[in-house]
This record gives sequence, structure tokens and C-alpha cells, in this order.
Amino acid sequence: MATRIEHDLLGDRDIPNDKYYGVHTLRALENFPITGTPISVYPQLINALAAVKAAAALTNHELGLLDKTRADAIVTACKQVQAGVAHAHFVVDVIQGGAGTSTNMNANEVIANLALEQLGHARGAYEHLHPNEHVNMSQSTNDVYPTALHIATHVLVLELVEAMNVLRASFEHKANEFRNVLKMGRTQLQDAVPMTLGQEFGSYAVSLAEDQARLLEALSTIREINLGATAIGTGINTHPNYAEAARKHLSQITGIPLITAQDLVAATPDVGAFMHISGVLKRMAAKLSKTCNDLRLLSSGPRAGMGEINLPAMQAGSSIMPGKVNPVIPEVVNQIAYEVIGNDVTITFAAEAGQLQLNAFEPVIAHSLFKSLVHLRNGCLTLADKCVNGITANVDHLRDNVEHSIGIVTALNPHIGYTNATAIAQEALVSGASVYQLVLDKRLLSQEALDEILQPEMLTQPRAVAAS
Amino acid sequence: MATRIEHDLLGDRDIPNDKYYGVHTLRALENFPITGTPISVYPQLINALAAVKAAAALTNHELGLLDKTRADAIVTACKQVQAGVAHAHFVVDVIQGGAGTSTNMNANEVIANLALEQLGHARGAYEHLHPNEHVNMSQSTNDVYPTALHIATHVLVLELVEAMNVLRASFEHKANEFRNVLKMGRTQLQDAVPMTLGQEFGSYAVSLAEDQARLLEALSTIREINLGATAIGTGINTHPNYAEAARKHLSQITGIPLITAQDLVAATPDVGAFMHISGVLKRMAAKLSKTCNDLRLLSSGPRAGMGEINLPAMQAGSSIMPGKVNPVIPEVVNQIAYEVIGNDVTITFAAEAGQLQLNAFEPVIAHSLFKSLVHLRNGCLTLADKCVNGITANVDHLRDNVEHSIGIVTALNPHIGYTNATAIAQEALVSGASVYQLVLDKRLLSQEALDEILQPEMLTQPRAVAAS
Amino acid sequence: MATRIEHDLLGDRDIPNDKYYGVHTLRALENFPITGTPISVYPQLINALAAVKAAAALTNHELGLLDKTRADAIVTACKQVQAGVAHAHFVVDVIQGGAGTSTNMNANEVIANLALEQLGHARGAYEHLHPNEHVNMSQSTNDVYPTALHIATHVLVLELVEAMNVLRASFEHKANEFRNVLKMGRTQLQDAVPMTLGQEFGSYAVSLAEDQARLLEALSTIREINLGATAIGTGINTHPNYAEAARKHLSQITGIPLITAQDLVAATPDVGAFMHISGVLKRMAAKLSKTCNDLRLLSSGPRAGMGEINLPAMQAGSSIMPGKVNPVIPEVVNQIAYEVIGNDVTITFAAEAGQLQLNAFEPVIAHSLFKSLVHLRNGCLTLADKCVNGITANVDHLRDNVEHSIGIVTALNPHIGYTNATAIAQEALVSGASVYQLVLDKRLLSQEALDEILQPEMLTQPRAVAAS
Amino acid sequence: MATRIEHDLLGDRDIPNDKYYGVHTLRALENFPITGTPISVYPQLINALAAVKAAAALTNHELGLLDKTRADAIVTACKQVQAGVAHAHFVVDVIQGGAGTSTNMNANEVIANLALEQLGHARGAYEHLHPNEHVNMSQSTNDVYPTALHIATHVLVLELVEAMNVLRASFEHKANEFRNVLKMGRTQLQDAVPMTLGQEFGSYAVSLAEDQARLLEALSTIREINLGATAIGTGINTHPNYAEAARKHLSQITGIPLITAQDLVAATPDVGAFMHISGVLKRMAAKLSKTCNDLRLLSSGPRAGMGEINLPAMQAGSSIMPGKVNPVIPEVVNQIAYEVIGNDVTITFAAEAGQLQLNAFEPVIAHSLFKSLVHLRNGCLTLADKCVNGITANVDHLRDNVEHSIGIVTALNPHIGYTNATAIAQEALVSGASVYQLVLDKRLLSQEALDEILQPEMLTQPRAVAAS
Repeated sequence: MATRIEHDLLGDRDIPNDKYYGVHTLRALENFPITGTPISVYPQLINALAAVKAAAALTNHELGLLDKTRADAIVTACKQVQAGVAHAHFVVDVIQGGAGTSTNMNANEVIANLALEQLGHARGAYEHLHPNEHVNMSQSTNDVYPTALHIATHVLVLELVEAMNVLRASFEHKANEFRNVLKMGRTQLQDAVPMTLGQEFGSYAVSLAEDQARLLEALSTIREINLGATAIGTGINTHPNYAEAARKHLSQITGIPLITAQDLVAATPDVGAFMHISGVLKRMAAKLSKTCNDLRLLSSGPRAGMGEINLPAMQAGSSIMPGKVNPVIPEVVNQIAYEVIGNDVTITFAAEAGQLQLNAFEPVIAHSLFKSLVHLRNGCLTLADKCVNGITANVDHLRDNVEHSIGIVTALNPHIGYTNATAIAQEALVSGASVYQLVLDKRLLSQEALDEILQPEMLTQPRAVAAS
Repeated sequence: MATRIEHDLLGDRDIPNDKYYGVHTLRALENFPITGTPISVYPQLINALAAVKAAAALTNHELGLLDKTRADAIVTACKQVQAGVAHAHFVVDVIQGGAGTSTNMNANEVIANLALEQLGHARGAYEHLHPNEHVNMSQSTNDVYPTALHIATHVLVLELVEAMNVLRASFEHKANEFRNVLKMGRTQLQDAVPMTLGQEFGSYAVSLAEDQARLLEALSTIREINLGATAIGTGINTHPNYAEAARKHLSQITGIPLITAQDLVAATPDVGAFMHISGVLKRMAAKLSKTCNDLRLLSSGPRAGMGEINLPAMQAGSSIMPGKVNPVIPEVVNQIAYEVIGNDVTITFAAEAGQLQLNAFEPVIAHSLFKSLVHLRNGCLTLADKCVNGITANVDHLRDNVEHSIGIVTALNPHIGYTNATAIAQEALVSGASVYQLVLDKRLLSQEALDEILQPEMLTQPRAVAAS
Repeated sequence: MATRIEHDLLGDRDIPNDKYYGVHTLRALENFPITGTPISVYPQLINALAAVKAAAALTNHELGLLDKTRADAIVTACKQVQAGVAHAHFVVDVIQGGAGTSTNMNANEVIANLALEQLGHARGAYEHLHPNEHVNMSQSTNDVYPTALHIATHVLVLELVEAMNVLRASFEHKANEFRNVLKMGRTQLQDAVPMTLGQEFGSYAVSLAEDQARLLEALSTIREINLGATAIGTGINTHPNYAEAARKHLSQITGIPLITAQDLVAATPDVGAFMHISGVLKRMAAKLSKTCNDLRLLSSGPRAGMGEINLPAMQAGSSIMPGKVNPVIPEVVNQIAYEVIGNDVTITFAAEAGQLQLNAFEPVIAHSLFKSLVHLRNGCLTLADKCVNGITANVDHLRDNVEHSIGIVTALNPHIGYTNATAIAQEALVSGASVYQLVLDKRLLSQEALDEILQPEMLTQPRAVAAS
Repeated sequence: MATRIEHDLLGDRDIPNDKYYGVHTLRALENFPITGTPISVYPQLINALAAVKAAAALTNHELGLLDKTRADAIVTACKQVQAGVAHAHFVVDVIQGGAGTSTNMNANEVIANLALEQLGHARGAYEHLHPNEHVNMSQSTNDVYPTALHIATHVLVLELVEAMNVLRASFEHKANEFRNVLKMGRTQLQDAVPMTLGQEFGSYAVSLAEDQARLLEALSTIREINLGATAIGTGINTHPNYAEAARKHLSQITGIPLITAQDLVAATPDVGAFMHISGVLKRMAAKLSKTCNDLRLLSSGPRAGMGEINLPAMQAGSSIMPGKVNPVIPEVVNQIAYEVIGNDVTITFAAEAGQLQLNAFEPVIAHSLFKSLVHLRNGCLTLADKCVNGITANVDHLRDNVEHSIGIVTALNPHIGYTNATAIAQEALVSGASVYQLVLDKRLLSQEALDEILQPEMLTQPRAVAAS
């Protein structure tokens, strides 16, 4: 295979001629044989890097620092990257040392060589257009990389919010379908008081809506970038107008209304925005996992469980137990949630470990955060499509449970008092008799009054009662 | 000791006559001998419970459900509780089963007996005023307890934000004091480029300000309560006007502009607001811990470390090494941070474990969250008072580091190029020579130009350079 | 109040004359107003410190470094501490900076003043017997404190194992009581195949036994101490025979067969033993929590849940729902488990943060670990006494579930094949018919053969079948 | 593309004819579009599944349940799988619902079709040899899958231990190389007392050795399998001799001395062995991360840091700062550690969530555990090869630090007392004078005595001193 020679501070290296990346990327490939997963697994990140490089080139040209030929070539190369033609050349490992330098170098080299190609030069002919001096002009990894991570995160959060819309609509549809299905509510797994199955499914939709609100709220911190900070936030080697001009270009390229952090020295080592998003994702994951736990509980059975609802059968449930069907879709979402919660701990560790003017551990923060975002998105779509949409209710069984419950005694409190009601409940439990019959037998209320009190629609909402 | 007899569904029990609590509290005391720490360790919670009970009594009276005598007695008793007269009677363990029922029962009983006392009745004479039928009227643990937790959290968050103000002011004061102290910035613990010590301390203040903003933002979810939900959110046994009227009274009593959750069925098992606050606290803890790590690094020495700053000596540092002084205050704040991060995992576990219409594990959520809030508050005040305010800088040593650094070569990039600059840096490192001298020796720049470029004030901010 | 003056490197301070502690402890009290919880909350730690000090004094005397009068006075003072007379004087906060120095200083000062008292001197008359020069002779916080933590951990682990014995015996007793109670086993919350309730309760006992084995195994790392390491493991200021002689005395005093770590420089900053124990506790906590989840699931109802077993009623379950009884004891154990899991994360953070020759964060490691140990111990005893011992089974309901289950079709696999069995299962589910009847109707097996196959004792263990 | 039709309880599906997997795998592929990573990413798991299937076939034949033709074909197919010919057909997602059923089904189908191929039948001609009836005979996912996970874990742990050997040898080599290099030890980042750099590097080797011991110790729980448990541990549908015979075959095939769990009902839902290994990995990760933190601290500089050692340069460290070289290899290992710690939390969540007779969440446990094992292995090899082996020491700078240190005053304690020594230390700090000179000036010791005390070899180990 034909090769070219490239040089860095460690010496010369042969680079296969068909590679757009160069010597810095090669070093990183060799230095970090950790996960086997390249950064191109997150195209949102590659695209964001290209957006930053294009914005910088446009700005450098505007400020008279970069000639038009090179600037145009760089911008075109960035568009090529965003079109996906070079994703296979973004090869450094998702877990890498060096605070993202290798990712930035990978981008600089691929874009330089794409630009050189346009300009009719050979790959590696950096005397015409240099990865560091031109593609990386006015930049440092320490502002480029976090800025790209912010942009990619913004894109991924919106993708997740969209998937949550789909799942939320599924729950809302079921809430409406089940709005008149009466059932027993439960607290601490014990029969409590009646509600409707629609109220229950509605609560799952509301829970998602609240997490969507938190995610969108958190985006305000993600839109804050440190581009122009260069090495440590002091803006060394940037023109005084660079940061603002680059922000404008980048906002236009990405369609995101970015703002520049007020204090770039504070912003550069700060990974608080990632921690914040991860914290919100963890919250969402825990709540979604609770919802999946509920779906699995309510569909337990078919005969020796709660048996309230039926999840659609998606595959044979057992290699030994014929006909067994399991709640595999909620189960996979539970597992995503556990992964997200673990990722949050990883991110917290990496965040706390930042030192002085930089956090060297942003790569693992990004990898963990992106996994959480992508897997939650996939989980929401899967849960909606392959589970919630096909859920059915065992209406008769649910009503039967209400009618035989002891919990309805709670509705009698305002009429017969907590102490009397406790005695009735205990007798019902021991004797197996119904609360209804016991109240009548003891002449605590007339049948008329009792029927009035125990109307289903009266049990599932507030109502005025005469003072006792 | 004189006792009275009280009764519950398990039978009769003797209660010491000097206790304001009753049989339900006694059962809980016996059932949960876990930590030995009573809920009264959080007076903010006790006060919040009293506020809820007072609001409910006022509302019940307004709605014609509770007579004026009893309502007045209950409200007065709540005020007594808030004055602290009965805190010693809030005795159930901070870690308790039952979703807070024991805490609510403890409040009902203490308030009932305080009210009975006013009315001239003996303790335990519940036929006159009953803990469940009157103090707990229109309520369930499942709305009272979370509502009280929200109020206590609100109070504690504001106390924390106030302590953060103190610490932030300390950092800002030092940032101003050190605004002209030039030093080397570091990335990945390696010498990078110059900055001022003022910029560095300023970044710690900014970091805190951002966390304050997140905390205050998160309070919007804390102000949302589920009072009126009763058992499972359906509002069973409440008057249709109860929730809104109680919310108004409670807002007035607490001075917090509370709002009622739109969907009480969704709100009742939802502990998302606590997870959210805890997530924000974890973020703040990780960032504050990073700041303390920096303070410890910068003050390492006195002779074989970085030796940039001096922390005030607070105590002898060693039982064997005479004269040793250690960074004990940052260290204690680090440890608080680690505790807060662990608490967040506890809270996540407890949150995910909620089932169906309730989260039974709110007590450990509350205990963990309150610890985080109180300890972070104490940590901020301690760090400001006993450490930051007394920090001094080793100005000469810092300037000396800058002058002998290799990192200033970065400022030459726009003038001599990345490749030339790399060669200079390598030669400086190997030979021990200064970058300044090497550039002159190699006639890469005139002394005049070099002096211009390396002016301190030029190195620590953006500046225009002529295009190379 | 009468005071005495004591002096440290920061100057003079008044100490109340009734305090056994001195100036170093006073500084620490003022420096660490964090949790309000003093170290005396763990008497096992105070006793362990006293044991170390006594062992050191005996060794120093043997080596000719400490005269008999002082050595005797110190040893006697240590015994007084172990008898509990001075626990109220161990006042420094459980979360403290300084790597345990304040705890060690607190011990040195209390023991010195107790010894001075015996010798007829005033408190603070350290010219006769000095906290650092005599009580702390040949020692550093950095070997004394970890050694004391190891000893206290050893004691607490054995107390926990003893409590686990109690809980395990409870489960074993129930396993035997329920050995013939047939029920449906469940996988993924779906009805699977039959088993006995005795097998299920037996599995909870086995689970505990395995955790006990892991805990006892882990004690081998706890018995390894670094006494004699002094400041950083090099043994500076110790006699070459000190480490071994002190180990022998300490083993004798504590009754624990301690060994000295082979490499004291490695051992001194190493908190791996605490991480290991905490990891084992976390494992135990997760498994115990799973057991409690099972108990709550199996007792769900009373009418709209699984209703397989009944937990003893321990208290009224609701302030609004009369007669409701909740699984409060398993719930409190769940919460302890969540706390232990969070503590493990705290410990991991603190452990990873150790630097160079010391881990400064041992105090929060100790506090977190001791909480885990004490609360798990209390949880095990509570669970045995207030829950497991009183559990009863709903035998008829359980048998009924087996007879109406579809899951028994699994037993027919070897006779009619997985494909036929799947068809039967599906038809049973849709039609509501029994598997038994469907097999007969389709003449897949004779009634004789079917009865033979479905004998309960045949379903709950392996058995030979003729090859099909 | 040619297809064949396969059938399951949900109906018929077309399967591409070139696929060895069948309808159950296809369903799973469609149901779990989560991570995009197939289970074949862990060849150790695929090989372990093949080993279990071969052992089962041999046993079933011995017990007269499976004819020789089919048994031979299955065993040969398993060998083909282990040779890697069909890894591309193990396609189900690493995060999947269903407790591993899809993984087991995937194995059953691939092995059945490989066996059918040998027997001259078309793929999918299951009437001749059936995935469930023959390949899965006497088995359930619930014993096959955990057994395969145990075997794969055993293999991966040994691979990790081997990599740790390499890293340990690197540290030991450096410990020997640096055995005479005197340096200041540090506690709490403050100068403490002298030691050798060899002692420091030796401690890193010892730390690894201890983790190796814990890992090997933990393998005892991994060698315990539940094969023969089938669905829930009761062994339904197995011959009484099956479990023991299968264990023997599996031990022989894998070369691992497996043992069968004593109580299979307890063992089947128990994921304690995975939690235990993960806990040990977390401990190792935290300790290794501390070592990497130390390497980064000691190599901080080159001019404004500790500058004690030099890590080999592996790549350019900055896209903006010329000549900057960063500690990228320790940094990548730090990040692996943070990931492992997060994985441990994921595993804990998944473990705690197991219910009744099964843990449905084993797939995410396996995925998380395997990532930890593989990445730690890669990290150890990388750290040894690309960092530790090339470390050099700045010997003169280190010795200079010792000579100018205040910390050597500690060695004077036994001679001049803690109080005098404290005064000397304070004066040295304030005045900048040397401890040596001050002691002479104050005539506290003769120069002869002082030189004797401060001999380097005397400072780094215990020694006898005359009693003062």
C-alpha cells in the first residue's frame, strides 16, 4: 500500500495514502487501543466538529488572518465531512487521553487533507494548508472540543425529546382509551382506593412531559459555549473580535442560538453543563424505569399475578416453558435506565477529577453522555412501538377487584369515622365478608346512602360531603 | 411514671403521660430502631409539617367540616410546634418504613395532644379532638408528607444559597486582590500559558454563581405540591374546593408561592423534584470539590510542591511531623462532596423503587437530601471563613515560574508558526535554556518584537496580531 | 467555668477545666462544624483507639523508650476509655479534614489527661506526660488511625454476621415450616413452573449464608494493619522491633489475630480493605433488598395482589385508609440497602482521591462504612424479629394457583414436545381452559400418564423420563 | 435473496437463507434496536455458550435422551462455533429484554443449523434437529445463560490478571531502578518525610498484587454454576443425574474446575457472583486511578510543577501549545476507571431489581461487567507499554528537595522533642533558613549527631534511638 511520510515532535511516520487522517491521529490510534469503538459512532459529534472548523475559518478570513483560498477550501471540506464522506476517517477511540486533543487533531487532519484535495495538492502537503496553522487557527482543543460536544449534545437532546413525544402520545392515547376503566389503586403494593386505569396511564404521560420540560430547560446551559477561550480561557492567540464573530457563524451553521460564556476562564474547565444534562437524564431514566416496573407488575400473571393489563407478545419468552410470554420490552428499557444511572456516576467522577484550567477527562464524559442520550431515545421509541401501543386491559377483572376490595372503606371515613371504619376493615379481612355488607349489617349507613357514596365516579375525584 | 392507655388496630398500649405523641408513634419507635437519629434533627421538616396541619385546619373550618374550637386549637398547637416547644416529641427514626406515615402520625398525635391541652383535656382524650379525624382531616400521609418535604427542602435550599453567597463573596474578594498576580495556567497538570491568579479565583466565584442559578431554577419544581391528593391523587375524602384553599393558606403561612400540581395522580408517587435537586447538589458538590482540589494543589509544598498560594493554618497538621500544616478545610469540603454524591445514588435507588401509586421510600430520600443540603451549607461557610478569606499568594514565585516557562512559546505561534515554535519548545526543555533567549539566538524575532509580544497584559487576554 | 491554658503552633487557648481533651481537639471542634455528630457515636472506634495507644505504650516501655510510671498510667487510662468513662470527651466531628489527625489528637489528649489524673497532676500539665511525646510515641496518625479503623471494622463486621445468623435462622425456620406448601414459581413476574414456598424461603437463607462467607473472607484484609508505618510507611522514628512487638500487644488486647502488612509504604495510603468490605456490604444490601422486594410482592393484596403470604401487622398503615396494613419492615430494610449502596459510592470517591503517601479522606470512609455496618445489623435483627418470624402462608390460594396454571405444561415437554406444548399453552390462555383438560381432550396423553407427570413432588425436582 | 420460512408462536417469518440464526433471533433483532452492538463483540461469551451446549448434548446422549447422530452433530457444531466460523450470526443486541432468552435462542438456532448442515439437511429443517427440543434439551435459558456468563467471566478475569502481571512487572522494574533515589514523601500534598522513589513505585506494584489476589479469590464464586437448574432451580425436565454429568463434561471442555451450586433454587436468581467481581474490579479501578493520579502529579511541570519524574512523550499534547506533552496514558486509564465505577453502579441496580425466581436483567450485568474486564485489561497493557516502562527520574531535583525540606525535622523528634521541633519548623518556614542550620545555631544537637541522624538510609526505615 502506498504511504506518505508525516512528521511530529516524536519523529517521522508512514501514513497509508488512502487515509485522510495524519500522524497525530495515527499516534492516537496506537496510544488508545481501549474500546475498539471509534468516535465516528457519534456522527453528531463529527458534524459538530466540522461546524466549528467552518465557523473558525470564516471568522479568520473575515479578520484578515486567513486567505480566501484556504478559507474556502476548509469550509468546503467541512461540508463534505457533514455530508458523511469522511466519517470512516474519524478513527480515534471514544475513550482517549488528552482532553480531546486527539479528536481535534483527527478533525484538523481530515479537513486539511480534504481541503488539500480540492486545491489539487497531495495529502500531507501541509505546506499549502496546515492542520494546526490553518484549520486550527485561533483555536485550541480546549475550546473547540467542548464547543463541539455542546452542539452534539444539543442535537441529541432534541432527538431524545422527539422520541419522548412519541412515547408520551402512546401513553396519552391509552389514558383516553382506559378513561372509564375502574380499578384499585395501590400504595406500598397494598390495595388502597379506587381510580381509573386512564388516570394511571395519564400519569405516565405527565411524568414524561415533566422530564421533557427539564431537558429543554437544561439546554440553556448547553447553548453556552467557550469558543474563543483557546488554551485556558484567556483567549491567547485570538483576535479581540474573534469570539463574537465565530459564535455568530457557528450559530448560523448549526441553527442553534449559541451564546458565549461570560467568563471564559471559568467556562473552559467547567463540565457542569454535561453533569446537569446527565443528572436530568438520570432522573428521567429512574422515572421511566419506575413506569416500566409498573407495566411489568400490572401485567404479571397471566393467572397467578395482578393480571390487570396485557402487554403485546413480541417473542417466545422461554426456551423451555412453552407459550410463556415475557415483558421483554419494559425489561430492556429498565436496563437502559440502569446503564444511564451508571453513566451518571462515571460522568460525576470524571467531572470532579478536572484540575486547574482544564478537565482532561471530557472524552469519557462525552462517550457516557452520548450513550445515555442515544439509548434512551431508542428505548422510548421501542417502548411506544412494541409495547404501549398494543396494551389491552382486563376490564372485568379490574372492576371485580374494586367491588371485593376492603379499600373502599376509606370513602366511608367522613360518614362513620376512622375508628369505626378501621373495625369494619379488620372484620372484612378476617371474615372474607364485603365492606358493603358489613356496613349494612351493622346499620352504620342506609343502603341508599352507601350506594350514593360508593358510586365509581365519586370515588376517583374530590367531592363535597356533609360535615359529620 | 404515670401512663395513659391508647389503642390502635393492634390493641392497647401504655403511653408515658409526659409524652405528646401517642400509640402510632410508639409503634414506629419500636419498629424502626435503625439509626438512632430522630426526625427532629431536621427542624425545617417539623416546622413544615406544622404548617401543613395548620393550613388544613383553617381550610377544613372554612369548608364547614371542622368547628371553630377545634380548628383554633389545632392552629395554635401548630404554632407551638413551630416555636420549638415540642421538637423533642418528634421521635421516629429518620429511616422508617411506611412512606412517611409514622412521621405524619407523630405530627398528628403531638398536635392533637397540644390542642387537647389548650382545650383543658387530658392527653389521649381523643374523643374531644382526634389525631386522625380532626388533625389529619381531608389529608393522607401521601399528600401531607411530600408537601412538608417540599417546604422543608425549599427552606434548606435557600439557606444553602445564602451560604454560597458568603463563599462566593470570599472568592470574588480574592479575585480582586490577586487581579495583577501573573502566574502560569496549567492544563492536564502541565504548564500551559500565563494567566492571573485573579482570573483563577474569579473562576471559582463564577462556578458557584452558576450553581446558585441552577438551584434557584430547580426550586420551581419544589414549589409544586400535591396537597389535596390524599391517598393516591384522586382526592378521595376531600371537598372539591379543599386543594386550592389549602394551598392558599399554606402559601401564606410559609411565605412560599406554592402551586398545586396539575395532575395529582401523577404527582403523588413522583419524587422527581427531589431527584432533580439532588442532581443539582451533586453537580455543585463535584464542582466545589474540584475547587478544593485546586486549592490543595496550588498550596502544595511548602518547598517540594507548587507553592503558589498559602492557606491559613488552622491546626497542627500532624501528631508526629512538627510544624506541618495541612489543607484541612478544603479536605473536609471534599469529603462533604463525596457524601453528597453518594446520597444522590441513594436517592436515585429509592426513587426508581417507587411502585404504582406511591413511593414508599421517601423517608430515606428526605434524610439523604437534607444531609446533603445541611452539610453543603456548613461546608461553604467553613470554607469561606476558615480558608479562602485568609489565602495569600507567593507573588514572586509565581512570576518567576512565568518567566522561566516554556509555555509562553504559544504566544509566538501567530508570528513564527506552530512548527517552529514546537522546535523551540523542545530545545528549551532539553537544554534548560529560556524560550526568550532561543528565539533571539535563532533570530526568529527581534528583541523589540519579542518584548512586545510577551508583555504580561498581552498574554492573558485576546489581542490583534498582524496576519503572518 | 474554670479553664486552663493550652498552647499549640497557633498560640494559646483557654480549655474548660472539666474537659479531658485539649487544644488540638478544641481547634478541630471549631474547624469542623459539619454534621454535629461526634466520633463517640461509634464506641467501637474509641475502644480501638484506646487499644492501639495501650499497645504502643507497652511496646515503648519494653523497648526502653518509655518509663514504667508513664507507661502504666497510659495503659490504665486506655482501660478507662474502653470502660466508657470518657466517651463524652471524644467530640470531633465524624466528617473532619486532616486524615484523622484530629481523632488521633483527641485520643492522645484524653488519654494524657486521664493518665495525669492518676499520677496526681492537673489536666494540661503535659510536662509530666505529653499527648504527643508520650501517648503518641513511635506513632503517627497515619498508622494509628487506619489501624484503629481496621479493628473497629473487624468488631462491627462480626456483630453484623451475628445479626445475619439471627435472620438466617428465621428464614430457615420458615423454609422448614413451608416445605410442603406448593406454589407457582415466577420468572420475569410471569407464572413459570411449580415449586414449594419452603424452597423459596430456603433460598433467602442460602443467600445470607453466602454473604456471611464473603464477609468473613474479607476480614482477612481487615486484619492486616500498618502499625509501625508512622508518617508514610518508612517507619521513621520507630525502633526496628517496634512494629512486631506492638502488633503482638495489640492482638492480645483486641483478641484479633492481626498481621502487619508486608510493605508499609504501600499499606499506608491504601484504603483497599475498606473498599473491599464496602463492596461486599453493597452486594449483601442489594441481595437483601431483593429479598425484601420479594416479601412485599408475595404479600401484595390483600385482595388485588399476589396474596401468597401474610406479613405480621406492626402498625396502622395509613392515616386515611382504615385497617390498611403495610409491609413497613421490609420497606425500612430496602431503605437501609439504598443507603449502603450510596455509602459505597462515597467510599469509592474518597478512596480514589487519595494522593501519594496518604489518603486524607479516611474519616468519611470510616463514617460511611460504619453507618453501613451498624444499619445493616439493625436491619437484619428488625427484619427477623418484626417480620419474618410472623409470616404465614395462604396455602389454599397457592395450591389453587398451581392447579389453574398454564406453566405446568412445561412438564409435558419431554412427552409431547415443545411445539405441541406451545399450542396447548396458547389455547389455554385464550380459552381459559385448563392445560390438564386440553391435553386429555386432544388425547396427547392418557389421564394416567398425565396424573403421574403432574404429581407435585415430581414437579419440584429432577426426575427421569423415558426418552421420547 | 433466498429465504426460508420459520414459525414461532407469533406466526411465520421469512429468514434469509444465508443466516444460521432463525425466527427467535430475528424477533429479538427487531425487538431490541438499542445499542447496535451485537453479543459477538464478546467472543468469550459465544465460546462459553457453545461449551455449555456441547456439554448438554454429551450428557443427554449418555442419559439415553438424545441419539448419537444428533449428539455428534451438535457437538461438532459447537466446535465450529468455538472456532469462530459463525460469530457473525450471533447478532442480538448486548442490551436485550428477556433475561438472556434471546442470546440462548440465538445459540440454539445457530448450532441447530450448523448441525443440520453437517447432517445434509437444509437450514430450518428443524424436524430433523430442533433448536429447542434437541440443542436446548434438559436446559433453560435460566441455567444455560448464567452458566455461560460465569465461564466467560472466568476467562476474562484470567486475561485481566495476566495483563496485571505485565503492569506489575513494569512497576517492579522501576522500583528496582529507583531504589536509591531519595525524595520527599508527601501526605495531604504537603511535604512530609524522606523516602525513596523505589519505595513509591514498589507500592504501586504491591497494590496491583493485592488486587490480583482478590480477583483470584473471587473466582471461587464464579466457578459455581447452576447448570441443571432449568427454569427456576427445581430442575424440572432434567434427569436426576443430569446436573452432575453435565458439570463434568463442561469442566472438561472448558478446563475450569466448575462446581454445582448446592441450592439451585437460590442460585438461579442470584447474581451475587457478578456483583462481587464487579466490586473487586471497582476497587482495583479506584486504586489504579490513584496510581495514575500520582504519576500525573509527580510528572507535573515541566517547570512549574513537581517535576519529579518524566513520562515518555507519546504524542503532541496540544493543537495550540507547541511542544506540550501531556500524560495521556495515565489519563486514559483514569477514564477507564471512571467507567468501571459507573458500570458497578449499573450492575448493582440491575442486581437489586431481580425478582422472585429470576433476575431478568442479566444481559446488562454481563455487558457492563465484560466492558469493565476488557477495558481494564487494555488499560493495564497500555499503561505498562506506553508509560511506565519509559519513566525516568529527575534525581538531582529530588535530592535537592529533601535537602531543603522542613520535613526532616521529624527525625529530630526523639532527640529534641515535638515541642522544640515545632518551633524549629515554624522558624524555618518563616525565615527560609534550613532546619539543619537552625538546629546547629540553637545548639540543640552537635553537628556530628545531626549528620548521623540525617543520613538518608536512616531516614527511610526504622532505627533504634537512645531514649531521650
